[in-house]
Amino acid sequence: MMTRRDILAAAVAAAQGVRLRAQATGPRTVERWGVYDVNLSGPTGGNPFVDVRISAEFRHEHRTVEVDGFYDGNGSYKVRFSPDMVGEWSYTTRSNRQELAGHTGTFTCSAAASGNHGPVSVRDTSHFGFADGTPYAPFGTTCYAWTHQPPELQDETLRTLRTAPFNKMRMCIFPKWYEYNRDEPRLQPILDRPGFTRYNPEYWRNLEFRVLQLQALGIEADLILFHPYDHWGYALMGAEADERYLRYTVARMAAYRNVWWSVANEWDLVKGKIRAEWDRYFEILQEADPYSRLRSIHHSRVMYDHGRSWVTHASIQGDQFERTPEWRETWRKPVVFDECKYEGNIPKRWGDISAQEMARRFWLGTAYGGYVGHGETYLDPHDILWWSKGGVLKGQSPARIAFLRKIVEAAPLALSPLTNPYYPAVASAGEYYLYYTDYHQPAEFTLELPAGIQFAADIIDPWEMTITPAGTYSGKFTMKLPGRPYTAVRFRKTA
Amino acid sequence: MMTRRDILAAAVAAAQGVRLRAQATGPRTVERWGVYDVNLSGPTGGNPFVDVRISAEFRHEHRTVEVDGFYDGNGSYKVRFSPDMVGEWSYTTRSNRQELAGHTGTFTCSAAASGNHGPVSVRDTSHFGFADGTPYAPFGTTCYAWTHQPPELQDETLRTLRTAPFNKMRMCIFPKWYEYNRDEPRLQPILDRPGFTRYNPEYWRNLEFRVLQLQALGIEADLILFHPYDHWGYALMGAEADERYLRYTVARMAAYRNVWWSVANEWDLVKGKIRAEWDRYFEILQEADPYSRLRSIHHSRVMYDHGRSWVTHASIQGDQFERTPEWRETWRKPVVFDECKYEGNIPKRWGDISAQEMARRFWLGTAYGGYVGHGETYLDPHDILWWSKGGVLKGQSPARIAFLRKIVEAAPLALSPLTNPYYPAVASAGEYYLYYTDYHQPAEFTLELPAGIQFAADIIDPWEMTITPAGTYSGKFTMKLPGRPYTAVRFRKTA
Repeated sequence: MMTRRDILAAAVAAAQGVRLRAQATGPRTVERWGVYDVNLSGPTGGNPFVDVRISAEFRHEHRTVEVDGFYDGNGSYKVRFSPDMVGEWSYTTRSNRQELAGHTGTFTCSAAASGNHGPVSVRDTSHFGFADGTPYAPFGTTCYAWTHQPPELQDETLRTLRTAPFNKMRMCIFPKWYEYNRDEPRLQPILDRPGFTRYNPEYWRNLEFRVLQLQALGIEADLILFHPYDHWGYALMGAEADERYLRYTVARMAAYRNVWWSVANEWDLVKGKIRAEWDRYFEILQEADPYSRLRSIHHSRVMYDHGRSWVTHASIQGDQFERTPEWRETWRKPVVFDECKYEGNIPKRWGDISAQEMARRFWLGTAYGGYVGHGETYLDPHDILWWSKGGVLKGQSPARIAFLRKIVEAAPLALSPLTNPYYPAVASAGEYYLYYTDYHQPAEFTLELPAGIQFAADIIDPWEMTITPAGTYSGKFTMKLPGRPYTAVRFRKTA
Repeated sequence: MMTRRDILAAAVAAAQGVRLRAQATGPRTVERWGVYDVNLSGPTGGNPFVDVRISAEFRHEHRTVEVDGFYDGNGSYKVRFSPDMVGEWSYTTRSNRQELAGHTGTFTCSAAASGNHGPVSVRDTSHFGFADGTPYAPFGTTCYAWTHQPPELQDETLRTLRTAPFNKMRMCIFPKWYEYNRDEPRLQPILDRPGFTRYNPEYWRNLEFRVLQLQALGIEADLILFHPYDHWGYALMGAEADERYLRYTVARMAAYRNVWWSVANEWDLVKGKIRAEWDRYFEILQEADPYSRLRSIHHSRVMYDHGRSWVTHASIQGDQFERTPEWRETWRKPVVFDECKYEGNIPKRWGDISAQEMARRFWLGTAYGGYVGHGETYLDPHDILWWSKGGVLKGQSPARIAFLRKIVEAAPLALSPLTNPYYPAVASAGEYYLYYTDYHQPAEFTLELPAGIQFAADIIDPWEMTITPAGTYSGKFTMKLPGRPYTAVRFRKTA
């Protein structure tokens, strides 16, 4: 079995070694859901980012996948592909430049290595799962601008993530200009502004590297494509540059199996766009992304219509956890509270909730049938706040989130909220029930579970992180509770 | 100065001695806002409660007040009056029975004794005050059926109230049939059911006695006239019996200066009435009550329109404290959260919130410019739950409510919520500011107070009940906060 260190080393090697392998001749092998780059040399004159079109048709048995390539600078062109089926694949390139068109090749897709579960997609309507059948319950965190920080800080963020409980990271492609974030980024994704035609290969190679490092840690990269915290013009590039940017991003990044698309953070705070532009971004993603990676859009005050067909899951801001059952029914999609405020102590309402409140919110969101995301904003002498720049975690909620994650991962797949329960609860009928009392502290609890099935009960203290067996029950019964608020009660069918 | 024990003894004597004094001849004296009974003997045949009408016209200088009397059984008739002006008063009785009509008399209204501040009414649009100018901020509690319990338990409730922080009591006139309340009451207010024509003097004398005992403790009696927890037919007596009941209640009870009218508890849960009937109850109260005691109506899910002219203040159920500023603007009346759930541990969502949550709710309501009421529901081997039967208090929130009450009573009159503050806050502009951080834990706080005025700051810990001076500020400034949630910050203009 590979250790996390082995996986990380392999990921780094993969990111750095791709070009060498792609330039080699003869049959080569790529693992299922891995990345295969077709590398070509081509023109350097004019502006290749705009002038040159390159793509390839990948074929496997009766299937054909059309994939756009991208220019990586210095005359280097790539068509990046992630095969999803084991076996022989072949390809033929196309281009509006003769020297790039008509290249062919074959390669073998081998079985996924240990720890590679494939991409995450929606499963059982309101949940997620990996392509190999492994369940995936998002326990995300947020470091919006971590890849824009000095390399040492990026490395520190990754070290922190190794032992943190998070398996999803919300992160921006464009740099961020905001309170506690008034630094020019080390690397700009696009070099000519305005214009937005010349991409910066160095920026994108770092992004790929960091996404692969996240992948090695089992962390999904929820890439935020647009956001309002702008200082360089990215938020309002114009329709043509927007589309070029989206297609370039997809061509470079979509092949990484841990990539998700977040069309925007706080879309409704971006000034100067109309709603149809946001719809159009989704359409471009649908058209360009050969893998249909997960697509969402995050709001501040005005919610986007998550019922639109191109939205794969609802990315919510707020604390209306009690609406989750309704939203699940309305949209028939997973509901992810990507921002429910941040644990911290900055003088901002959105960044100063207590660790207890954050832990409570994770439990509430879970007990109503949703998923909740974390962020942290403690004052720092160097303004390195986790929520934006990464670094180290200072708070007390991550330990509790780790505890909850273990409980959720030990539960059956596809928990659903109970209809109108007395306290919020998710269940797998006849098998598993998880209640959370929130600020209630009942000394006893009358419940009706299916008769004829024995359920082992546990009293869970989410803050002290204890699980105490509390007897076996069936049918209608009253059980004693500790009379403490913020208590969870779990019932599991006995074998 | 009278001790509480002296006041209580005086109140008991007053309640018991009224008949003796009223039967005495010659000029007598009653204190301002006290109770003067005209006692008459009259017919006992038929049903005097229905057949006999008795009233009196009370005169003081150019003023005339028409007051309905009532039958007290055994041929005893009373016209009960509370004079609100010092000086000479005279009266003449009227009746449809000759032996009760045309009685005249005079008495002197003396200045109010120490501790008698008169009745409470609305002041400064969103607040309350006593008639003598003393401020009154309601810190209510709830013992719905306490006067229906055995006398020893009623006495115990009063002993508890002597040291409790409450100055208002929500209590039902009709007995209560509900969970934890399945006892027949000791005394019924009306003896013939259905019919509802023969009142039970013994019941009403006890009610008067208990209301006077509350008065001696400085507690307003928020008398609930109708409620849905019925077992005896009181909730649906019919329009005629309803009106007779309201007029009888007003005739007996309105003269007690600490009486408020709560037309209903959870009016929307009473089955079989239409909305116009509730309006009509208010109209009857307006017509019958010579003192215009405070009038409200409490809902469960469907709010009555508190904007109606006959509603003196909004009696709210719920925890939407953040709506208080809007409601104050809309209704231009005080907003009282008479039920925001109860501290306790019974297996009911409405009766199992923690002491911390109850304390938090009092602070939130206060900081948004409203008033909050208490109730307590801890399981008891004899089903004596404070919220209904009274008895003793077991919880931890009353101490914190006492602490908050002292802070509010030390504040200037007529605090108003700040418009869109960063954390909820009430203020008296240029003089006093009180912020509450709720679950936020900012380590610092940037604020702009009027320049040119020095404000002394205090950090308040509402749970630990500590007040810590934190320097003097003026204009725009940033101050350090302890970084704990549930913190209050107070600024007071220095002398």
